[in-house]
Amino acid sequence: MINITKPTLVLNKEQCMTNITKMMEKARQSNTHFRPHFKTHNSAFIGNWFRKLGIHSITVSSVSMAKFFAAYGWRDITIAFPVNPLEILNISELANELQLNIQGDNADILPVVENALNYNVGFYIEVDTGHHRTGVAWKDLAEIDRMLEFLSKASRLKFKGFLTHSGHTYHADSQEEILDIYKDAVLKMNYLKDLYRENWPDITISIGDTPSCSLVNDFSGVDEVRPGNFVFYDLMQYSLGSCNLEQIAVAMACPVVGKSIPRNEIVIYGGAIHFSKDFLYKSNGERLYGYIVRMQEHDWSKPIAGAYLANLSQEHGIIKAGKEFVEEVKVGDVLGILPVHSCLTANLMKGYLTLEGEAINY
Amino acid sequence: MINITKPTLVLNKEQCMTNITKMMEKARQSNTHFRPHFKTHNSAFIGNWFRKLGIHSITVSSVSMAKFFAAYGWRDITIAFPVNPLEILNISELANELQLNIQGDNADILPVVENALNYNVGFYIEVDTGHHRTGVAWKDLAEIDRMLEFLSKASRLKFKGFLTHSGHTYHADSQEEILDIYKDAVLKMNYLKDLYRENWPDITISIGDTPSCSLVNDFSGVDEVRPGNFVFYDLMQYSLGSCNLEQIAVAMACPVVGKSIPRNEIVIYGGAIHFSKDFLYKSNGERLYGYIVRMQEHDWSKPIAGAYLANLSQEHGIIKAGKEFVEEVKVGDVLGILPVHSCLTANLMKGYLTLEGEAINY
Repeated sequence: MINITKPTLVLNKEQCMTNITKMMEKARQSNTHFRPHFKTHNSAFIGNWFRKLGIHSITVSSVSMAKFFAAYGWRDITIAFPVNPLEILNISELANELQLNIQGDNADILPVVENALNYNVGFYIEVDTGHHRTGVAWKDLAEIDRMLEFLSKASRLKFKGFLTHSGHTYHADSQEEILDIYKDAVLKMNYLKDLYRENWPDITISIGDTPSCSLVNDFSGVDEVRPGNFVFYDLMQYSLGSCNLEQIAVAMACPVVGKSIPRNEIVIYGGAIHFSKDFLYKSNGERLYGYIVRMQEHDWSKPIAGAYLANLSQEHGIIKAGKEFVEEVKVGDVLGILPVHSCLTANLMKGYLTLEGEAINY
Repeated sequence: MINITKPTLVLNKEQCMTNITKMMEKARQSNTHFRPHFKTHNSAFIGNWFRKLGIHSITVSSVSMAKFFAAYGWRDITIAFPVNPLEILNISELANELQLNIQGDNADILPVVENALNYNVGFYIEVDTGHHRTGVAWKDLAEIDRMLEFLSKASRLKFKGFLTHSGHTYHADSQEEILDIYKDAVLKMNYLKDLYRENWPDITISIGDTPSCSLVNDFSGVDEVRPGNFVFYDLMQYSLGSCNLEQIAVAMACPVVGKSIPRNEIVIYGGAIHFSKDFLYKSNGERLYGYIVRMQEHDWSKPIAGAYLANLSQEHGIIKAGKEFVEEVKVGDVLGILPVHSCLTANLMKGYLTLEGEAINY
């Protein structure tokens, strides 16, 4: 393994490219537009891998992220986050440079946005198909009509269609339930599309969450998909059944700084400020912050049976493991950890080291 | 309130200075050396506030953080984290510039460290007085003897004394239990000091966790204290009884971007990448990620009764609140949130805005 002295997010580029290509091909075969979400990797360098594959439109989750990718030449960006009126001047400026799309879920916000814009902006009505975080309820046609009435007269806001994020797939108990949520969302979104397409013939529907997009084999009936996490996957996706362990393309490499044989514990340099504090529950109710792998020359091993990241403080991580493994590991070794939530881990680490030793810092 | 357009960590400098001064004075009156932990604010600018009060020795939690503060002129730094042999060259370089102290909990690591050092480094034996994360067990005199035997012959490693972090105070159920943990740690540390001071007359004991240091009124019998979180405090400290709500010196200011009257929810721009995902449990078992306050001209209000940050995704936060408050709040408003864990929030935000409008970016 490459020279690692402190917590480092190691990227299996080959697996990452496989994840990207597989999702892209699935969209292509379904005649569905692929607008990957870049919030997971949040890297201009990795963004270029997508560009080389012919992908030119992306999704981001903040105006700041849109500005970042705009600076690296991206010219078709959807900000999949409720439009923040306090950032409307930044949005307007960005819209001068590129095809920018925003979203909203109520009519009250529209005049404020329309009046502040100096350039055209694409507008999606965000629809709540069951996640209940944001979005106008799919059956609240009165509110949708109010929005469309305003949009039909707006000069800067250009209505593009309906957008949803079926984030409730993250609480599903089975692959079947994820597929049911997807089908339900597609049905509701097409219901709205059919309802309004006489007046809005170019209307599109956009959906996107990694669990659905990973498990569905055919996106027919959906105009656009916006998954993000699939680029790396993680243990949360694995626990949902949206990926297998081999598809996880990132591992944190962390130095071992201590151990306790009586407690069957290994202490790593790697804590909440490296991993984030998202966790899964083990079947016995204990928290699990990661699986443990051995870092190898140009790869990492399968998870070590019985070993897991059990606790995180600011900079310390505590691995619990079987006696044999604890005895074998030495202070000064470097262990790999498959993270629970790669989006948050990548956000904290701000960079990657590929298995080939290439540092990615932007 | 100052012009806020996106999640911003607002700092009440006056309260922060009160927190610092109070702890410093308590240490001074106890004739106890004050070596504040800088991992919470992690800011050279805030560090200067301590320096102006006459504080010249600090604690950090990583070699990287030691390098950061060394670059800002700090010349007496303890790295309160198990020595990482993979960073020994960086440690050695730093030790050329300043009085550096490191810690370890076993004899096996000592020859590796000693042999790699080109300059003198202070060495603390980390003692486990009950937290059971790292440290040699306080009663494991055989291991302590092995360490001291090596240290008595070492030329670079200079034995300074015993150090402990009573982090189990964070799991205490009452203020009384925190005080009991403190007394227990002081007893064990003094037992070790007494045992070894014939051979090591300059031996010191160093303890430090914010719950203990906040509740104890007199540090007599302790040579050094190293609290960190007290500089800002947070809801976790409040829930432990180590501070009151007025002592919390940071609030996240977040734009309101949506609301749902049927669900009694307000959606803010402010998520896991701003707050971190540490949470407390409400009495009904629900998660609580923050209390809600109103941002005022040069202050913030008391928490709004019945309102709390109930959920976080990457960039969204969901506030649950009473009907009246939800109806009153408008998209485009800015709400304040008292964070659960200010160390992790500050680490994510990387900067502060004081109530007077001063931006702190380093």
